Amino acid sequence: MSTPRAAVLVIGNEILSGRTRDANMHWLGGQLAGLGIPLSEARVVPDEAPLIVEALDALRARYDYVFTTGGIGPTHDDITTDAVASAFGVPVERNAEAVRRLNAFYTRPGDLTDARLRMARIPAGATLLDNPVSGAPGFQIGNVYVLPGVPDIMQAMFEALRHRLSGGPPILSLAITAALGESRIAAGLGVVQSRYPELNIGSYPFVRGNGFGVQVVLRGLEYERLRAARAEVAEVMRAAGGEPEELA
Amino acid sequence: MSTPRAAVLVIGNEILSGRTRDANMHWLGGQLAGLGIPLSEARVVPDEAPLIVEALDALRARYDYVFTTGGIGPTHDDITTDAVASAFGVPVERNAEAVRRLNAFYTRPGDLTDARLRMARIPAGATLLDNPVSGAPGFQIGNVYVLPGVPDIMQAMFEALRHRLSGGPPILSLAITAALGESRIAAGLGVVQSRYPELNIGSYPFVRGNGFGVQVVLRGLEYERLRAARAEVAEVMRAAGGEPEELA
Repeated sequence: MSTPRAAVLVIGNEILSGRTRDANMHWLGGQLAGLGIPLSEARVVPDEAPLIVEALDALRARYDYVFTTGGIGPTHDDITTDAVASAFGVPVERNAEAVRRLNAFYTRPGDLTDARLRMARIPAGATLLDNPVSGAPGFQIGNVYVLPGVPDIMQAMFEALRHRLSGGPPILSLAITAALGESRIAAGLGVVQSRYPELNIGSYPFVRGNGFGVQVVLRGLEYERLRAARAEVAEVMRAAGGEPEELA
Repeated sequence: MSTPRAAVLVIGNEILSGRTRDANMHWLGGQLAGLGIPLSEARVVPDEAPLIVEALDALRARYDYVFTTGGIGPTHDDITTDAVASAFGVPVERNAEAVRRLNAFYTRPGDLTDARLRMARIPAGATLLDNPVSGAPGFQIGNVYVLPGVPDIMQAMFEALRHRLSGGPPILSLAITAALGESRIAAGLGVVQSRYPELNIGSYPFVRGNGFGVQVVLRGLEYERLRAARAEVAEVMRAAGGEPEELA
């Protein structure tokens, strides 16, 4: 079986305006790597139906799994559900099971308002996703999983659905760092990459105090190969005058 | 003049794997909003040339400005320069001015290694972008600005190029928050949005302690309209039993 691949579609003006810093893409990327479903692309689009539909169609055609975040709440700017239904060419219905769950969550008389009932609008043919935090379900339709934008709720919903995902072997990673400019190890690192073509070796420079440092991250499926390649990177760092430090 | 629009293309496996949390998209989104060039879409792709080229072509055709971050360093996984040249159908050359700048930065004999000289490889016809921090320039070609991934260096380079950007009127924003579930204000908020169609009114729920809160953000070009609309949102919040707090 080839390794399945995932995409994330973050929906929301607030992310693009610089007002809110997205946390969901990063969190999902780490979770999916652990499940052996590498996140292969991510997009952020505003709350505009044509842009959501276009991005969703591009991603769901290319990747095994697509996760959207944001835009499924009760307010006027929550248009994700309608956009997803439009992409799949199905109507949006009031879902009886979703109403039942909202009734179970909002138990006081009058609490299940029209606004809250809006969260029971689900595309026809979709499967509900459990929301352990706040009642209103997400949903799955085809290979698309539609999740809320609030990180706590999104994460709880993902934990409840992860057993449905079929991953490949987990992608392992090892890292090593040294207080060196990355250009000092560039040639040697290229040699190590060519000797381990099945691994992905990334070099990430950073600024620390007055100097530069570099972190090298090795990713692959076989732990022994990662360890062997990392030992060679350590040699490259030492030859450049660095003192490598291994990281998990 | 219509308002120009921007896109950001974040390039790097480390962002998608969940290892590194991107900071550049968020920062650029805020800066561009202040310049009157709203960030309208963002994408994250891995260090793979075909995916970079495809995303770049899609974005540069649609938006007035495209900013890429990442992948212009000296190591084997830095392939952004070649991918951008490929998208524009031009060769990559050793740029004499870029060599001069690297020489001015790496002044000790032997410091300007072959690896560092790799950072003087620039697509033909591109204009260099100043790097006040570490010498190696970014570049502009057409409507695409190619920036490094290290946040400190990217930000310094953006500060040095921002005078080249022509924005529309700055996009202003006001916000207001209350300790209410957002469904409590959903209906009233929709009414306010319909009364101020030229404004963008977003509702962002959050979890705080044991309860829910909501922040409403109003964005638009006229401060007085924003203030008037926010006052109406405050009334909606009070009518729902909340105590609204105005934010900048």
